[in-house]
Amino acid sequence: MRYRRESVVAILDTKRVGETEDGVPIVGRVEDALAFDPNTALVGVVTQGGRFPADWRALLRTCVANGLDLENGLHVRLTDDAELAELARQHDVELRDLREPPTDLSTATGANLEVGGTIVLTVGSDCAIGKMTATCELDLEARNRGLRSVFVPTGQTGIAIAGWGIAVDAVVSDFIAGAAERLVVEGGERGDLLWVEGQGAILHPIYSGVTLGLMHGSAPHLYVLCHEVGRTHVEGDATHSPVPSLAELVDLHERMSLKLRPAKVTCVALNTAFVSEDEARAAIADAEAETGLPADDPVRFGAGKLLDAVLERV
Amino acid sequence: MRYRRESVVAILDTKRVGETEDGVPIVGRVEDALAFDPNTALVGVVTQGGRFPADWRALLRTCVANGLDLENGLHVRLTDDAELAELARQHDVELRDLREPPTDLSTATGANLEVGGTIVLTVGSDCAIGKMTATCELDLEARNRGLRSVFVPTGQTGIAIAGWGIAVDAVVSDFIAGAAERLVVEGGERGDLLWVEGQGAILHPIYSGVTLGLMHGSAPHLYVLCHEVGRTHVEGDATHSPVPSLAELVDLHERMSLKLRPAKVTCVALNTAFVSEDEARAAIADAEAETGLPADDPVRFGAGKLLDAVLERV
Repeated sequence: MRYRRESVVAILDTKRVGETEDGVPIVGRVEDALAFDPNTALVGVVTQGGRFPADWRALLRTCVANGLDLENGLHVRLTDDAELAELARQHDVELRDLREPPTDLSTATGANLEVGGTIVLTVGSDCAIGKMTATCELDLEARNRGLRSVFVPTGQTGIAIAGWGIAVDAVVSDFIAGAAERLVVEGGERGDLLWVEGQGAILHPIYSGVTLGLMHGSAPHLYVLCHEVGRTHVEGDATHSPVPSLAELVDLHERMSLKLRPAKVTCVALNTAFVSEDEARAAIADAEAETGLPADDPVRFGAGKLLDAVLERV
Repeated sequence: MRYRRESVVAILDTKRVGETEDGVPIVGRVEDALAFDPNTALVGVVTQGGRFPADWRALLRTCVANGLDLENGLHVRLTDDAELAELARQHDVELRDLREPPTDLSTATGANLEVGGTIVLTVGSDCAIGKMTATCELDLEARNRGLRSVFVPTGQTGIAIAGWGIAVDAVVSDFIAGAAERLVVEGGERGDLLWVEGQGAILHPIYSGVTLGLMHGSAPHLYVLCHEVGRTHVEGDATHSPVPSLAELVDLHERMSLKLRPAKVTCVALNTAFVSEDEARAAIADAEAETGLPADDPVRFGAGKLLDAVLERV
């Protein structure tokens, strides 16, 4: 919504019927959304393991029966559902699986080190802490300043926003770095300041493989370290693993960089959405003291300070 | 060959026709192998990207036409070749794709931390330096001592040797840790000293994602660090990336361990196949001095010393 507001005519959310979000009406049934003339229904949930909740099937069929294209970012493919595919054919609508990887992926070749311009990767202390948001904010700010800046999407939501990209968590694991490499090569054709959307976290018990493959395959020159203020343990992980400290994360990311592209952390992007403004400012000061790097919340206070910190190192 | 000698009746290698390997005859044509009464042809090559060399198709058809089952560890699936699948049906032979992952994989759950017994993971400075071999040697030595030891295969060759396992580099990248977790859970049902076959290297520019996902998903208590003496640069990587030092690798693996399972490197397994015995002994002494850990070549000098080093920490 924040980065593609102009494309959204209605939201389906049975728990908030009658409200609005940033001016967009919230409805409880597909039929009620039709008044706003949509052409596509975007699946706006992500489930662990990437499968559809059971009751979603009827919902998707209703969308298709009403002539809406479907756009889906789960691991499960719409096109694998033969009944839904047949219904889509009957109603002449398109089923788009955003996580479906290109069929011709392979291992990384070293082309990532040949990309012109500067590659900046967002990394973080956990999943779902605002890495994509920080990436989008930095890209927007850079474009507002007239730079040839590009947001490089690596996950289904980023792909839904930007209209291109590869969901690196859905590729064969031997090809993670190859997929990331392909993304920065394409990004290099689109501009010369590439903001690569990070995924997972290097010490995440479940998703770290994706994180490190993306780190090496995208061959960043610089990192932006993301963290959610107050997040002390990895979310969505039954083992309740602690999140590493910011200083530890700075050190580990730098040491785990490609030998031929030793990358530095330039600044810390904090997500302060769940604390007061005073607490946010205190957390920013603490992060700066702990890491010796500029820190800020790019959503709450603007991305200017963090962009300055990155550009200083370009 | 070294770990399943009793199953091998002939080798097909057009460059060594007429020689033998560990008593096994080497032939130049499938037809010449038939005299030795084989029932299965194992694809004994691995290609980067995992596709078949073009001229292999005729070879595979000849095997099938002569009634041999096929066993294949490349990313490309035998069963995807409709003509070959039809030929296999006609000749009533089986096409086995060793890298085909289970269809019901998902993300890791934390069950890896509940496995009884001790989990030991081999890690290393590069691919193809002897991690699987070191793992097999340690398992053999432990079984010879009467321990309930289990080799846990994570790649196609290991699977061909042990007859079970998952090729973790072939799963959807979100599920690497989930696949590794499933392997140690199954390993825990088979014994109580689990030797998990490592894959890749944590600073490998191409395969590091698989390595780290396996590291976190298999939740090892201990590591065995593997290195090939004389290997200074990552092989099969066009960027010619340098291999990290042993001391750096010990430190990085320990720091990159799961927060809830901080694992230590117990010893260094050196592959000294390409140097003289004197040079091998000198390299072992150097590795011990550099890391402060016991080192040895388990193939050349036996796995006893390394096994002692591991058992001391169990």
